[in-house]
Order: sequence, then structure tokens, then C-alpha cells
Amino acid sequence: MNERKVILREDEMPRQWYNILADIAMNPPLGPDGNPVSPDQLAPVFPMNLIEQEVSSQRWIDIPEPVMDVLKIWRPSPLVRAVNLEKALGTPARIYFKNESLSPPGSHKPNTAVPQAYYNKVFGIKRITTETGAGQWGSALSFACAQFGLECKVFMVRVSFDQKPYRKSMMATWGGNCVPSPSMDTKAGRDALERDPNTPGSLGIAISEAIEAAVSDESGQTRYSLGSVLNHVMLHQTIIGLEAQKQMKKIGEYPDIIIGCAGGGSNFAGLAFPFVHDKINGKQIEIYPVEPAACPTLTKAPFVYDHGDTAKYTPLLPMHSLGHAFVPPPIHSGGLRYHGMAPTVSQLVDEGLITPRSVKQKEVFEAGILLARTEGIIPAPETNHALAAVVEEALKAKEEGKEKVILFNWSGHGLLDLTAYENYLAGNIKDIVLTDEEMAESEKIFANHPKPKSLKSR
Amino acid sequence: MNERKVILREDEMPRQWYNILADIAMNPPLGPDGNPVSPDQLAPVFPMNLIEQEVSSQRWIDIPEPVMDVLKIWRPSPLVRAVNLEKALGTPARIYFKNESLSPPGSHKPNTAVPQAYYNKVFGIKRITTETGAGQWGSALSFACAQFGLECKVFMVRVSFDQKPYRKSMMATWGGNCVPSPSMDTKAGRDALERDPNTPGSLGIAISEAIEAAVSDESGQTRYSLGSVLNHVMLHQTIIGLEAQKQMKKIGEYPDIIIGCAGGGSNFAGLAFPFVHDKINGKQIEIYPVEPAACPTLTKAPFVYDHGDTAKYTPLLPMHSLGHAFVPPPIHSGGLRYHGMAPTVSQLVDEGLITPRSVKQKEVFEAGILLARTEGIIPAPETNHALAAVVEEALKAKEEGKEKVILFNWSGHGLLDLTAYENYLAGNIKDIVLTDEEMAESEKIFANHPKPKSLKSR
Repeated sequence: MNERKVILREDEMPRQWYNILADIAMNPPLGPDGNPVSPDQLAPVFPMNLIEQEVSSQRWIDIPEPVMDVLKIWRPSPLVRAVNLEKALGTPARIYFKNESLSPPGSHKPNTAVPQAYYNKVFGIKRITTETGAGQWGSALSFACAQFGLECKVFMVRVSFDQKPYRKSMMATWGGNCVPSPSMDTKAGRDALERDPNTPGSLGIAISEAIEAAVSDESGQTRYSLGSVLNHVMLHQTIIGLEAQKQMKKIGEYPDIIIGCAGGGSNFAGLAFPFVHDKINGKQIEIYPVEPAACPTLTKAPFVYDHGDTAKYTPLLPMHSLGHAFVPPPIHSGGLRYHGMAPTVSQLVDEGLITPRSVKQKEVFEAGILLARTEGIIPAPETNHALAAVVEEALKAKEEGKEKVILFNWSGHGLLDLTAYENYLAGNIKDIVLTDEEMAESEKIFANHPKPKSLKSR
Repeated sequence: MNERKVILREDEMPRQWYNILADIAMNPPLGPDGNPVSPDQLAPVFPMNLIEQEVSSQRWIDIPEPVMDVLKIWRPSPLVRAVNLEKALGTPARIYFKNESLSPPGSHKPNTAVPQAYYNKVFGIKRITTETGAGQWGSALSFACAQFGLECKVFMVRVSFDQKPYRKSMMATWGGNCVPSPSMDTKAGRDALERDPNTPGSLGIAISEAIEAAVSDESGQTRYSLGSVLNHVMLHQTIIGLEAQKQMKKIGEYPDIIIGCAGGGSNFAGLAFPFVHDKINGKQIEIYPVEPAACPTLTKAPFVYDHGDTAKYTPLLPMHSLGHAFVPPPIHSGGLRYHGMAPTVSQLVDEGLITPRSVKQKEVFEAGILLARTEGIIPAPETNHALAAVVEEALKAKEEGKEKVILFNWSGHGLLDLTAYENYLAGNIKDIVLTDEEMAESEKIFANHPKPKSLKSR
């Protein structure tokens, strides 16, 4: 009898998140005056309990019981052996994935939406604003807000709003209110529409709108929530990797290679950070964040100080950035269309602890179709970026005749992204690669910003 | 620490299906000559190994190992305690559900799609045709055919094809070919279009098309597959109830009430039949199949001999039927728009072992929204029919102050049915109830058919 999945019991779930800030040196976020941002300066944007978590350097942080209760709606997530993929590729590699597509919104995003809604609730907040790319994050936050009785307003990047009309209905079913961004509801939105009335929108613009909508509520009962990039978001996602470590241990395996797609970095970090901890402590692991060639933040853009949003409402963050005004091409992976990258992930790249790679749209969907027909689950287009790299590594292992153990993160399902598959099957998906000229142009915007220091954690 | 779910290990999965034919007396299907149909007469439509299963009266039937391997992609499914729903309703009832929404296509349908694809493969068949209502079945069969390397052609009821465009892309991603029905590809389809060029279509018409497409393939390598109604389909679905029995036993519970929605009967039967077995052996349980008031097969239509499809390609089946030419109103639950009902489920109703009820569209979606916001998962519109009855029973338990244990089947998620939720939230969903006049008219069609005998199994 073959076991296909490694399942944890609910009482085996990790009870603490892993905080990578305990293990790596970081450049601080900088305010408008060029000095490090103080927690108080962030108070109009986030509740103080989450700000404390954002700056904490405590290695292990307890997961509150009410958060555990909601996570158990779908967690612990299975660790799956991709036996059919192995057979299809004829590889000696053993391939495993964490299936994060089983949450009600269909991705890993509620891993942080739930604690963020909880901490806001505890702090007395009534209403949360946010942005969303492909819609996974906005859906996750709407779901989490319904669990804790909070209102939720979502600014969704226009191109994805139009590509994925079901997302709005999904958020509405959970009680969330979703509008396309740029909108006329905020100054940031109106400015963006004035610059280009036909803009496809960007996460940078949508973040500006959501922050503005939060801080301009005079009742003081609204805060903003971000679905990626920030330290506390990466923290909440580490439950994925911590579960995976327990599951691999149960079957006596340990990964040689870790792979996750990277837009803002949270799904990659969620799986990878607990293994980065192992790597810092001596384990040999290759760790690959995978991004689209159309938005090559980690693979081509420099490590700089830049804003997280287009209207410059956020502090300057030390990260790989294509420039805060950069509007990525409208590829079918809205969740990866972000000009920047989590500072923690950027720092790890800068130190050489992880190795970014980029893939093009056609190989991405080719891998997605292969996985749908072998492992059964239709992957989100974002997940397909990880899958393309998995296939490449599995074939490399075959060529070299090595029994590599590959572990990747199946970040979400693609059931609300089926238009993209239809376009691919009809031959209407093109490879889009950002040119050096386009990049040089978009990066002028941070020429005068301070430079992050090159820090070594080891 | 609260346990939310009861999880079985893969090695605790049932290894045999439960066959209710061992426990109840049945009227036989009749051929065109009025005599019971012989297995040979079905051979052009189904592979012989499935026909043998269809007529078997062996109580326990082994699940083949290659079928187990594919079921493990998502099974065993969790048994979930609906704690948030209980709180929201303030009921003393303990409410549990089997979450069948976690399969890759999002419903219980692959429980039978997988074995059906397997048996066809073993029998040397290359291509399977089928019909689908809301698209859940066509998606499930496309998924299953991809697992065993078979071609799949799906005739999808026109109104659902138009309401749910993503379904076609989903099937295509797994390699399936989906066309709207009635189509010009078959005589049955052309005839239906001639009668009414604007017909919304019906499962009855789509079944005719799929059977015709199978039997008219002169290579002999095509067979037809049905996603509900037939005995072997009910058989394959019993894995749901068998798992539930093991799971309830683990926590020392046993249900007082069982609830499932019923269109053709398979999702209801899957959960209920193993408990019907218990009931026949003395257990006290109330068992409720729930259907739409717009298509009240079990609650209003008589127990007769009628065809399973509009073009009369199928044998006469002993079942509750609204008449094989009946085109149900275009409600937002395509999976429940069927004029007939599984003969096994019909027989149980006739004997009073189970008690059918019907619900209207508005209460159905009201219950769906409540469940989405409490238990988190957005239910399929079909599932919402069960949920409406669950809410009613939970409130009754509250009124009576009784600690009833309610178990229901969460047959699928509604992520590809979000247009229906949008319409409901916008106030555009109406209650549709079939009138006695409409029913009398549609039932004239079987006036001259033979009558099934009233049989008693106990």
C-alpha cells in the first residue's frame, strides 16, 4: 500500500512561527527624513501589536489560540509525494510539495490573513483596507475578516479585476468589498488615472490607494493590511515550512532543493525560511525563489532603498526593486506583478543564501498543464513558476543520475484563473521579457535614494 | 486544544465499497420489449466489467489498488465539526460534515469518475463520452481520464455552459473536450434544437447525446459514462459514508440525522447508504435527501418506469420521474436539474426508509452565505440545498432543546458558481416552484409505461 500524502494531526501543528530576523542582519526601513522609522510612525497604518511583531527579533513567536482555531479549517496542509510527475519525467528525483491550495480561498494567503485580522480585532479595529493582484490576497483577507467580524475593502489591480471577474463575487460572498484600482476613491488612484487613463494598474498603485483609504479614516478604526513583503507576513507564512519539516522527518527525508515562486516573497519565504535557518546552521540546501522574466526583481534589479508603493506612502525599504513607479506587463500571474521584493528575501539573495531564477510564460503554463494532468490539481499561474523550475531540476537530476529530494510549494489552485489556461491552450500566451533598456529607465526613480549596506549574517 | 477535523490516515481508508443491492429488493430495468434488460444489451454502452458491477448483489466489493492510488490524491476526506455554524445558530445540535470539496475538480464526483475511467481502461476502451449539468461531473471525468490516459468528450447542458464558462477551460486543462448540449453533433441534439432552438438544454437531452456518440463509434473503442443514477455510481460514492462511519466512531459519535442534496442521487447516496444499512439493521436515524422545489422529483413526482434520457436510448428505470422530456427551469444548481432519480434512492423513498424534502432557491443561497461566512468554504449551489435543511434541523433542535447529532455531505465548493452568488447578493434570485399543472402535463409521457411493483426489503 503506497502512501501518497504525509498528514499531520491537528495536535502536531507547529504552535510557534519562526522569525528569521533572529538569524539575519537587516538594513532598517527609512523614513522621509532618512532616519530609521520608529514604531510610532507606523501606528496610523498598522495596529501596534502587529508593528511590534514586525520589528521583533525573537526567534519563536507563539501562535494565538483563536488563530490556531481558524487555521484548522484547512491546516495542517498535506505534504504530497508527486509520484505521477516523477513517472512522467522518468526522474530519479523524489519530488514533494506542500499543498497550500486547500484553504477556502485556494492559496497560502490566509496563513497571514487570519492572524492579521485577529490582531486588528484584538486592537479594536473595525475595518481593514488592502490591495490585491490576482485576487488571492483580497479573497483571503475577506475570508479572514468574516471569521473575526471585520469589514474589508479591497483595491484590486485593474488588469486582474477584468481578467478574473469571479474574484469580486468571491470576496462579496465573504462580505468583502472589492473595487478596481486605480479608482476614483483616493488621491493616489485619481493621480494614476490622470497619468494614464488606460493603465492596467499595478500592485504599487493599489497599495497606495489602500494605505490612503486607511489613514484617511478619521474615526481611527481603520487600518491597512499587506499580504506580502513585510516581516510579519513572512513570519506568519513559516507555518508552511515548519509543518513540512515535521512531515519530512516522519518519513526520514530531507530536501536537497527547495523551490517556491516569488512575487512579494511570502509564499516562497513561508516554505523556505525554516530551511534557511537550517542552512545557516550548516545544512547543505539549494534554495530557489522563482520569478517571471517579465518582472525580474531578484534576478536583474539591484538591491536598493525604494518605496513599496507608487505614491511613496511607505517608508524606504531595503530591497531588490524595479522602481516604485514600474508598471509590470500584464502577464497572467497577477500575484507576481510587483516591482519590489520582501526585504528579508532580498537580504538572503544579497548574502548568497538563496539563488533566484526567472522563467518565461510559455514554459510556465507548459509545466502547469503537465502538473494538472499528472498530479491532478490545476495550479495557480503563480505556482506554475515554481513548477517550471521543479521540472528543470528533476530533469537535471535525471541527466546526472542523482536521487535528489526536491521540495516545492504548491501556493494555490488555478480554478479562478482558467481564462489564462484557455489562452495558453489556444496559443495566445506570449513570452514577455523585460529589456535592459526598460529596466534602466524604470530604475532612474531611485537614483537619489540612500544605499543599503552589504551585511553578512554568518 | 480543540480538534476541528477528524482525519483518517490513508491506511485507514475503506478498501471495499458497500453495495446496497445486497440489502434491498429492486424492480429490474426493462428493455424496449418490456422484459428485464440483459447485461449483453448494455454492452455497446458500458464496458462489461462495469455492467457486472451494476447488476452485482455482492454486499462488499473490493476497490482496485490503482483506483485507491488516485483517490489518495485527495482522500480520505475530513469529517469536520461545524463549530462556527453551531455558534451562529445557538443550537445544542452537534453538526458534522464530510468535506468532499477538496478533490481537484471540487466535488464528490471523482469518487466514481476514477473507478469508471479505470474499469474502461482495463477493458481496453480508448474514449469516454458523458453529459454534465453544472459541470462538476464533466470536470471530474476529464480529471479521471487524464489519470488513466483516456480521451473524454463532454456534452454540457447549454444553460450551465453559458452560466459557467470556466468549466470548459477546466476540462480542457485536463485534456477533455466540452461542447454545449443540445449540439449538432448527434441526432438527439439536432432533434432537440429543431423542437426548440432556444432550449436551455437538460440532463435528459445531454445524456441522449452522449450515449449516441458512444454507441455510434464504429471502432468499438468508445463507451458512455454516467455520473449519477446508476447502481455502480452509488456504489463508488459509498466511500464517503464508510469513511464517515469510521471517523464518527473515532470520536464516539453517531448521527441522529443524515442530510444530502439530491439531483440524480449520487452525493446523497454516497453519504447515506452505509447508514441506511445500519438503519435496516435496527439503528434509529432520520435520513433526508433534499431537492429543489423547482425540480421536485422525490417529493412530488410518482414512482414509475421511465427513461433516463429524452431520446429514450436508456432502458426503462424504476424511479421517481417528472417525465423524460421534462426540461427543468434554469435554476442555479445545474447538478440538480434532472427529471429522474437513482432507482436505489427511489426505492428507499418508496419503502419509507428515507424521507425526501424540497427547498426553494432563496433559502438555499441564504444558507450558503451563512456557511461561507461561518465555516469558511464557499459551497456549491447544489450543496446549499443540503445546508438549508441542516439549518432548519439545527434550529428545530434548538427549539426542542435537543442535542441532536447532524451529519451532512458538503458535496462541493462553489468557486466556479460565483455568478450565482453575485446574482443572489444583488437580489436577482427568485424562488421557482413547479406547479401541479406543469407536473401533470410533463408526466403524461409515461402514462403507458409498465408500473414498478411495491417491494418491501424488510
